[in-house]
Amino acid sequence: MDAVLPPIPTLDDIRAAARQIEGEVLRTPILPAPRLSRLTEANIAVKYENLQVTSSFKERGALVKLLSLSEAERRAGVVAMSAGNHAQAVAYHAARLGIPSTIVMPKTTPFVKIEATRAFGAKVIVEGETLVECQRIAGNIADTTGAVWVHPYDDPHVIRGQGTIALEMLEDGPPLDCLLVPIGGGGLISGMAIAARALSPTIEIIGVETELYPSMRAALDGTEARCGGNTLAEGIAVKDVGRLTLEIVRRLVDDVVLVPESAIERAVNAYLTLQKTMAEGAGAAGLAAILADPQRYAGKRVGLVLCGGNIDPRLAASIMVRELARSEHIVGVRIVIPDRPGVLGDIAATIGSCGGNILEVMHHRTLLSVPAKGASVDVTIETHGHDHALEIIFALEARGYGVRRLDGPEG
Amino acid sequence: MDAVLPPIPTLDDIRAAARQIEGEVLRTPILPAPRLSRLTEANIAVKYENLQVTSSFKERGALVKLLSLSEAERRAGVVAMSAGNHAQAVAYHAARLGIPSTIVMPKTTPFVKIEATRAFGAKVIVEGETLVECQRIAGNIADTTGAVWVHPYDDPHVIRGQGTIALEMLEDGPPLDCLLVPIGGGGLISGMAIAARALSPTIEIIGVETELYPSMRAALDGTEARCGGNTLAEGIAVKDVGRLTLEIVRRLVDDVVLVPESAIERAVNAYLTLQKTMAEGAGAAGLAAILADPQRYAGKRVGLVLCGGNIDPRLAASIMVRELARSEHIVGVRIVIPDRPGVLGDIAATIGSCGGNILEVMHHRTLLSVPAKGASVDVTIETHGHDHALEIIFALEARGYGVRRLDGPEG
Repeated sequence: MDAVLPPIPTLDDIRAAARQIEGEVLRTPILPAPRLSRLTEANIAVKYENLQVTSSFKERGALVKLLSLSEAERRAGVVAMSAGNHAQAVAYHAARLGIPSTIVMPKTTPFVKIEATRAFGAKVIVEGETLVECQRIAGNIADTTGAVWVHPYDDPHVIRGQGTIALEMLEDGPPLDCLLVPIGGGGLISGMAIAARALSPTIEIIGVETELYPSMRAALDGTEARCGGNTLAEGIAVKDVGRLTLEIVRRLVDDVVLVPESAIERAVNAYLTLQKTMAEGAGAAGLAAILADPQRYAGKRVGLVLCGGNIDPRLAASIMVRELARSEHIVGVRIVIPDRPGVLGDIAATIGSCGGNILEVMHHRTLLSVPAKGASVDVTIETHGHDHALEIIFALEARGYGVRRLDGPEG
Repeated sequence: MDAVLPPIPTLDDIRAAARQIEGEVLRTPILPAPRLSRLTEANIAVKYENLQVTSSFKERGALVKLLSLSEAERRAGVVAMSAGNHAQAVAYHAARLGIPSTIVMPKTTPFVKIEATRAFGAKVIVEGETLVECQRIAGNIADTTGAVWVHPYDDPHVIRGQGTIALEMLEDGPPLDCLLVPIGGGGLISGMAIAARALSPTIEIIGVETELYPSMRAALDGTEARCGGNTLAEGIAVKDVGRLTLEIVRRLVDDVVLVPESAIERAVNAYLTLQKTMAEGAGAAGLAAILADPQRYAGKRVGLVLCGGNIDPRLAASIMVRELARSEHIVGVRIVIPDRPGVLGDIAATIGSCGGNILEVMHHRTLLSVPAKGASVDVTIETHGHDHALEIIFALEARGYGVRRLDGPEG
């Protein structure tokens, strides 16, 4: 652990990486996002790294690392450990280059990610409960087979690859005052900070972590990070930042901010519904930072890296529906009714005549809060929003029903 | 109706439109889509018109039309009729140019679209059950106020604007053998066909309609279209194609194909889960055509216009979850059990030990198929797919339970 750090890559190293990956990794678009700008009052441009084949930026660093291998190393193959995007990136580019790859994934990895990694051509080993255990397993494989270990972030080649994103943003995009970059282990922000700082000495470079995994923030502060919890942004849920990445962040990054999970959820939803693009939690962290602290970015020209789009479809679906509940476009009400024919018809007709759309009806007869000869019915209604929801509730009350709001799933 | 048709726009007219809208409408990216290509065996490039501010291509034609107005006409304002993207496009660009706009929307318009149109700055009138009724109302407004009618497709200026998409695809994108273009009233394909045919005489231009609204197909065949039904692609659910657009399609388009709703649903899901981008049904029609008839496009370089992304979030959510059910990543089973303590625990433990994740449990006690002292329980389980689902069912049967598959919502 006390080995000398490798030298920090330079702008020229990153430019060389850009030439190496040209045509092999998509030069993704960076585009203004006027609806996100209107939402936040920042002037936002988005770099769409979710359009890469494996739907994340990780391909850049993985490919640069693979291209650095000797012929003998290529034949021995590579091994990596990852629950997510790094796994797919290594699998995909190793297969393209004819390099055998083995990926160790923890048992908690979502099924879709395991399948995707296999489909891209890797040998996948699902073993170990934690990333630390997986790292040990992967280390053993490297030791016994001679395969080259591809670290997800703490490697100069990987950092060089990720840095190409900043080159492209500054070459292709509008002028920027500030870059907001998600931090897991720090590979992305390290590469980007080297390139951006060299090209634009005044640009503000801010890292973003979920407050559940504030490992880089803590490392900079010299405190111990309290990491843990079920985050939407598993792509940046990293307990140990890199030694090299920490050193680069310390030198070049202006600030590292923490965002609450609720802001990440809102950001994923805003990307989907306003910008029509799918961001995983980690990919939405930059936008989450603006949503969590809009004043800081108001009027600034901010570049966001939508660094990955690999969100579980069920989670994405649930986030969109939860946002409709939050904005009262879907409301749940509990109505206590006499248990006799015609009552539900009357309720449904009342809601319908107000222009509410009934999505779901559920009866309860065993709740103690309901009279023995009564029933309670939960109705989920689609509305135009807050005022319309109130209008529907007033109409039900005017018909003599006792109505209680069920505020979403927590209700 | 028998008035002389206006002259068909030329390539130069479209080039002039491109200069007019430069900087005011996003030059959207056209990018290779390797995962969609792998899915279909066509070589697909996608033009992301869903990244426009109002999330559809309609801004192009609307802006070109608005820019064609005289000072007096601008002061009198514009009126349009639309349930969807044309409404938002006219509202947004009219507001930007300081032109008053009135949009008539049918009563069946989803709430979100009405709100979005108002938010973009239009006066919205929600009246009329059908588009024909709305058209009459809008016509009256034009007659009484002197406002200029902005037709959604059958107007040379609108057609010029939409044609700019083909210019950009052929200038910015890879070489293409074939363009697949959604058809509603025919404005998009008319403009694109003029530009593409002039620049590339051999390119194949194919229009796509949902089989529920085959109006252009029927008009070309000289038959009467049987239109109707609840389509996912309401953006192209048009009963009457334009006179000018029909003439252009007849001259320049090679074929018009019809796609089933099931293919549109699969295409929306593929865009979301593989390409990480949100397509409304009409926007996914081109991809649906490939999914419905893959042999026809195998090996061809196909350009798709992802023409709009305004899909209801609840519908998008439901499509993703339905696809998980279709691929057996979510399965429902009905199990008849004795109604006593511990049974559900045993079932849950059995499923858990196979690695299945329980999403939902629902009990039934009043079904006649269940013995009086029994109950039936429906369990929704997340699995790795078909084989894993079978493994879980076998494990439950091995514990003595009678298990029946509930195949999705139709079960």
